[in-house]
Amino acid sequence: MRSAVVHQLMWHQLFPAPEREGPTLQSQLRTHLVNAVLDGRVTPGTRLPSSRELADMLGISRNTVVLVYERLAEDGYLENRPRSGYYVTHRYASPAMEALPRDGDGAPAAAPGGTSAVQWQARMHGVAADAKWLEKPHDWQRYRYPFLYGQFDPTLFPIADWRECSRHALDVGAIRGWAPDAIDNDDNSLVDQLIRRVLPRRGIAAKRDEILMTVGAQQALFLLAELLIRPGTRVAVEDPGYMDARNIFLRRGAVLAGLPVDADGVVPDEAALRDCRYLYCTPSHQCPTGVTLTTERRLALLDWTRRCDGVLIEDDYDAETQYAGQPLPAIKAIDRDERVIYVGSLSKTLSPGLRIGYVVAPAAVIVQLRRLRRLMIRHPPANNQLAAALFIEHGHYDRLMHRMREALATRAATLCDAVRQHLGDMRFAAPPGGSALWGMLPGHVDTGQLRRTAMAHGILIESGEPFYLADAPPCNSLRLGFSSIPLERIEPGIRELARLVSPQGRVREIGLRGAA
Amino acid sequence: MRSAVVHQLMWHQLFPAPEREGPTLQSQLRTHLVNAVLDGRVTPGTRLPSSRELADMLGISRNTVVLVYERLAEDGYLENRPRSGYYVTHRYASPAMEALPRDGDGAPAAAPGGTSAVQWQARMHGVAADAKWLEKPHDWQRYRYPFLYGQFDPTLFPIADWRECSRHALDVGAIRGWAPDAIDNDDNSLVDQLIRRVLPRRGIAAKRDEILMTVGAQQALFLLAELLIRPGTRVAVEDPGYMDARNIFLRRGAVLAGLPVDADGVVPDEAALRDCRYLYCTPSHQCPTGVTLTTERRLALLDWTRRCDGVLIEDDYDAETQYAGQPLPAIKAIDRDERVIYVGSLSKTLSPGLRIGYVVAPAAVIVQLRRLRRLMIRHPPANNQLAAALFIEHGHYDRLMHRMREALATRAATLCDAVRQHLGDMRFAAPPGGSALWGMLPGHVDTGQLRRTAMAHGILIESGEPFYLADAPPCNSLRLGFSSIPLERIEPGIRELARLVSPQGRVREIGLRGAA
Repeated sequence: MRSAVVHQLMWHQLFPAPEREGPTLQSQLRTHLVNAVLDGRVTPGTRLPSSRELADMLGISRNTVVLVYERLAEDGYLENRPRSGYYVTHRYASPAMEALPRDGDGAPAAAPGGTSAVQWQARMHGVAADAKWLEKPHDWQRYRYPFLYGQFDPTLFPIADWRECSRHALDVGAIRGWAPDAIDNDDNSLVDQLIRRVLPRRGIAAKRDEILMTVGAQQALFLLAELLIRPGTRVAVEDPGYMDARNIFLRRGAVLAGLPVDADGVVPDEAALRDCRYLYCTPSHQCPTGVTLTTERRLALLDWTRRCDGVLIEDDYDAETQYAGQPLPAIKAIDRDERVIYVGSLSKTLSPGLRIGYVVAPAAVIVQLRRLRRLMIRHPPANNQLAAALFIEHGHYDRLMHRMREALATRAATLCDAVRQHLGDMRFAAPPGGSALWGMLPGHVDTGQLRRTAMAHGILIESGEPFYLADAPPCNSLRLGFSSIPLERIEPGIRELARLVSPQGRVREIGLRGAA
Repeated sequence: MRSAVVHQLMWHQLFPAPEREGPTLQSQLRTHLVNAVLDGRVTPGTRLPSSRELADMLGISRNTVVLVYERLAEDGYLENRPRSGYYVTHRYASPAMEALPRDGDGAPAAAPGGTSAVQWQARMHGVAADAKWLEKPHDWQRYRYPFLYGQFDPTLFPIADWRECSRHALDVGAIRGWAPDAIDNDDNSLVDQLIRRVLPRRGIAAKRDEILMTVGAQQALFLLAELLIRPGTRVAVEDPGYMDARNIFLRRGAVLAGLPVDADGVVPDEAALRDCRYLYCTPSHQCPTGVTLTTERRLALLDWTRRCDGVLIEDDYDAETQYAGQPLPAIKAIDRDERVIYVGSLSKTLSPGLRIGYVVAPAAVIVQLRRLRRLMIRHPPANNQLAAALFIEHGHYDRLMHRMREALATRAATLCDAVRQHLGDMRFAAPPGGSALWGMLPGHVDTGQLRRTAMAHGILIESGEPFYLADAPPCNSLRLGFSSIPLERIEPGIRELARLVSPQGRVREIGLRGAA
């Protein structure tokens, strides 16, 4: 038996001082206790300190300790012996771990000789080393001025509404619906909400068998490429355009043809389109320039699909964020020939972290995409599909759209003003929607260099360079995202950024070591 | 203005009689009202019936109506005008829909002529038409005797524990963590829990950079095939074995070599293994036979990897369900040469619908898998990763394992007894773990035919045929899953099944039209 002092010391080691931030005290205490039992640091039969002792030791309320002990007893980790106290049971103590042959000395020795390292690099057919990505620091939330695109603003996230829907999705009946393997099925209630509430706003009338849910729009593009593109297939893309779509097509061996982008959107350049079987585009707010494709151009693209047996992949990732005037309907809405495949997403509205996207395509295509998806992941997690369905059904999605459009419109105006004031020689057009401002700095500003310098000053911006397909893209383009930067940081952030650009259009080094 | 009678009629049409099953009355009422506003069926400025009127009309409590009205007013759908009542606001009424150019008559007409249907079948490189799948009816939960594998038993699902963890994952701080785009990151807390709690029980010591989370084990296999297998790569698989892995490898152009399976598990047949670069196997409980691979065989497989520069893909999908004795550690645990890639899953324990799987592999492989995953889906939904991490951290996972092992052991014993009693001439070995019994019926029983006949009698069984790689598999094998059938249904189900098999080993037609 240990002495009382040793005993108390042991418990002190098991329970570090509670943190006041983060999980509740109950949750922390439960975690520490369960860890100690499962790791074998307290053995079965050990008596725990009384609730009063432990509460005193940790400086927390006795009630907290009592509640945790009671719950752990219910759960079988502890046993309450009358007039004696709480004891660790044998139930979850770690016999299995002890009984397992260990990876240490007890394990069979490797056969002598013949051992050689695997030449992994020669075996792996990974993503091309020169693939262009957007580099976002993982800790972007800690930067003062995050002019990042596509990220998330906690002040806009509808916390209470999402909680309410998530709770409904935890009802017993709901769990029975989503917990089993759905094999290749989607949550019909979500598909129905897209049909009734989301797609009609884009002018699209779709049936259930024309929709497939995906793990974000990203998976929608990956599945389409896997199904439709073979080595050598010519695919037309916007230049500048969305690099992740390009990376996906290239992975399948596509030959890419770049179409220029002007103030009317992507240019249906007949020479570039020659022999293309697919055209990938972002008509609502072109990625990255934000330009809305004109109706004339839309009709021209549809005309191309008919004349040349082409198929158009319409990525409508942020159509819901239009704030200047009414949005144009999707191209899919005016397609009479089933030559448009539509890709949508809730990432730019609800949350990117939930990964909810979808494809609208002819039923014959959905059948094959569904088989591929079954092979790839079976189905997207079903509990999130249900919660998202309830979120739309209860009208929260419509309210969120409304609030988000208002917030983005205000930010867009503030950003344009700040740029006019502080970066007067940047060329840009005020965006009609979306959450980014695309522009060109004067002549020879290298925005790649500016990005790195700005980062060291707590400002995150995006150089436009990775969006270009061509070999020698302009070095002075940049994108300023405003979906995740608070309104009041916009003007000071642009002012700070402007200080880093000299009147001669060079990136200044303002007393900074190691940057650029 | 409408007359009072018409008015009341209108509201009656808007609110169908509440359903006593399903969502709460509040939720139903909210949904109907929001639908009516968003669909434009009640227009802005419309006064709603008083809470008393509506409560009387629908036969529900006035309090319910009051709560829903108040919440909708907070949300901006309704406006409470003092001494007058609740009115529909203009805020979410459907101007956007009205203003959109419609897909109907108002839309630009398609260009005349030149229209031709897309030849989709010729364009699509889908999953091979002759791929073998397991066919499970989507409404399997409605069958009386579901001897299905891999499905879910609501009585074992830890509803309260999962709810608790999901609620923690809805804290404001937690949402800030999971709602953004994590790009290519995983939830570190889940990875840490796997390292501390789950993998050690399999004898595996892994570091953070050796683990990648996936959308179920299925995506893990898909990613590995995408990275490692090229057209013509020889891959050894178990025969019989898991057909979805075979389908994934075949999609990448692999040449498959079948290894036989005996009472010691997969046979390391040197002739079949010749020129193979990969071996895919399920050592814990072989799929579909349930056999545990012996230690001698495990060492022989590792020896093959070293001698022949082979890599072993270990699918440890249900190792946690061992109930007869202690489980053997994973092969990964005794691999000294980084020649084993390990695939795990929470589907067979927590829930298949959540789609949580993972890969453990050398860091250099994980780097490439992560890039591929970024291209394919970015990352698995982050809220579920956090909830699963809490679930393990709070000790619920260990309790669930315990309970599940006990339940499966009881069911396995009951099933073996029932088969001995009613299907005396079925050959089988009592399973040491897992949730299925594999066996052979006498001589010429066609289990494919038996499956169809049984289905018509409310009994779901699996014919073993799709598990075989060889061209002329035995027709008399079957798998009886017991993860989703209640204990008390097992014996009656087997008794019913036995009635369908005659003493001559033929499938009987018992007064059934259209079956088989």
